[in-house]
Amino acid sequence: MDQISVLAPATVSNVVCGFDCLGFALDAPCDEMTVRLIGSPQVRIFNRGMYDLPSDPEKNVAGAALLALMEKIGEPVGFEVEFVKHIKPGSGIGSSSASSCGAVVAANKLLGERFSKLELVDFAMEGEKVASGEKHADNVAPCIFGGFVIVRSIDPLDIIALDSPPLLATVIHPQIEIKTSEARAILPKEVPLKSAVKQWSNLGSLVAGLAQSDYSLIARSMEDFIVEPVRKALIPKYDEVKAASLAAGALGGGISGSGPSMFMLSETLSKAESVEAAMCEVYSQTGIKFHTYVSKINPDGVRFL
Amino acid sequence: MDQISVLAPATVSNVVCGFDCLGFALDAPCDEMTVRLIGSPQVRIFNRGMYDLPSDPEKNVAGAALLALMEKIGEPVGFEVEFVKHIKPGSGIGSSSASSCGAVVAANKLLGERFSKLELVDFAMEGEKVASGEKHADNVAPCIFGGFVIVRSIDPLDIIALDSPPLLATVIHPQIEIKTSEARAILPKEVPLKSAVKQWSNLGSLVAGLAQSDYSLIARSMEDFIVEPVRKALIPKYDEVKAASLAAGALGGGISGSGPSMFMLSETLSKAESVEAAMCEVYSQTGIKFHTYVSKINPDGVRFL
Repeated sequence: MDQISVLAPATVSNVVCGFDCLGFALDAPCDEMTVRLIGSPQVRIFNRGMYDLPSDPEKNVAGAALLALMEKIGEPVGFEVEFVKHIKPGSGIGSSSASSCGAVVAANKLLGERFSKLELVDFAMEGEKVASGEKHADNVAPCIFGGFVIVRSIDPLDIIALDSPPLLATVIHPQIEIKTSEARAILPKEVPLKSAVKQWSNLGSLVAGLAQSDYSLIARSMEDFIVEPVRKALIPKYDEVKAASLAAGALGGGISGSGPSMFMLSETLSKAESVEAAMCEVYSQTGIKFHTYVSKINPDGVRFL
Repeated sequence: MDQISVLAPATVSNVVCGFDCLGFALDAPCDEMTVRLIGSPQVRIFNRGMYDLPSDPEKNVAGAALLALMEKIGEPVGFEVEFVKHIKPGSGIGSSSASSCGAVVAANKLLGERFSKLELVDFAMEGEKVASGEKHADNVAPCIFGGFVIVRSIDPLDIIALDSPPLLATVIHPQIEIKTSEARAILPKEVPLKSAVKQWSNLGSLVAGLAQSDYSLIARSMEDFIVEPVRKALIPKYDEVKAASLAAGALGGGISGSGPSMFMLSETLSKAESVEAAMCEVYSQTGIKFHTYVSKINPDGVRFL
């Protein structure tokens, strides 16, 4: 085998009370990528999609992730990567993460699976560093592990795959730009201990709700006292979308990543579709272009084609 | 049935990264209590133990909890409570909580179990208010539910019973006094967001570790970046006890409640006993009197005799 194609999924990070640690993988949208093993130690990027992306491997997130992997191998192998991006950069649903994860998962398959998922997350974080200036695993961990994951720590890297019951996600992506740097800058450096306690009580309860397949507990625990109150100001009609989604039957939800996408979780496909309709109704009044997605939680992460 | 006897167990609250929300019940020590139904709407307290406790029901924690329960019934019934306290007040392992929980669980049995566990927690919190000036469920919730619980919220009251694998607790109670008010006063009002994120990543992971019976994950997650660093100064030889316990095989642990007791969790009885020996060795050099306990996690909470 000298080439392989994968679907690298979008992911939701900063899941409500799980800011900077809890994320999950979606079934759709996905990036399509084909990776070929070549005999020279270099990475060549071929972008077949509609989004403008750097072809210099050190500046391309997939390239940076592959270069990290190649450094670890220490053999004269390289890769060609051809991709069609469907996840718009800057959407807040892990676009850069999909590229780096797809690349390293495919490369690892071509190399006979010599790296663990944890090592692949480590390589993919080099892609995130190119994208955002900072190594973080909030999206790459769910993209590689699938399902819900907690990033307990990145140094040392410790990723916890969570058990969860069937859940559907509805995502709305308003076509506006939120700079990650701006979304970071408005966060408080310090938070009241009382709010932090409420936040971790909710996160502990949310993890318990997922483990116990207790949808009511999942719904009750999806409260964010720290990040949502400041970041929602960056997203037009945030409160209206959330209220309409909950009224349509969503269990709860919030900002995906640092926005502008919002996500809601539901117990059934029909509820998730009602939530989508409710989101569309709110956003169709804004004049802002938007996309919506309804997706199962993806239990596998990156998939081979 | 007009009288019933119960064993009301000690409890550990503020479990490491679960400050103000995560607690568990011990098998030992326990308070022994006998509660009798009487035909007049009053509470009579008979203290048969060695600790001096108020006999005025409004000032006695068991009395206050029973008065709250009686107010809810709205019928002319009352209770006599006779107790032998074994859990020393001020030990940090839920002494007041055992009294109020034992009283209301026994009373509820005499009344034909008309209240839910959640309602009993609500009554018992009135006892905690008498003891500490503040309603909180950190000890009464595990005392009534048993096992590990999260107090997600007290208004509205929301208690989450967690799944957990077999675990042993080793507790050391140095015979020194730490005023809850002092332990509260030294806590920071605000905490760095970065520390709070580490704390909730650990709590989410700890709940996952308990749910998945993953002892390694339980051990890795028992880190406290917020409370332990400031409160450990109140407990002589804290670092030494912890280091010796971990060296003896403990998974992890920390301060019980607001101290002075410390607790450690272990996977097996033999390890828990090695931890006890290690604790004793450290404390026998201090000149401070102390007690140690090795106990299973109590899955039931208050038990009927």
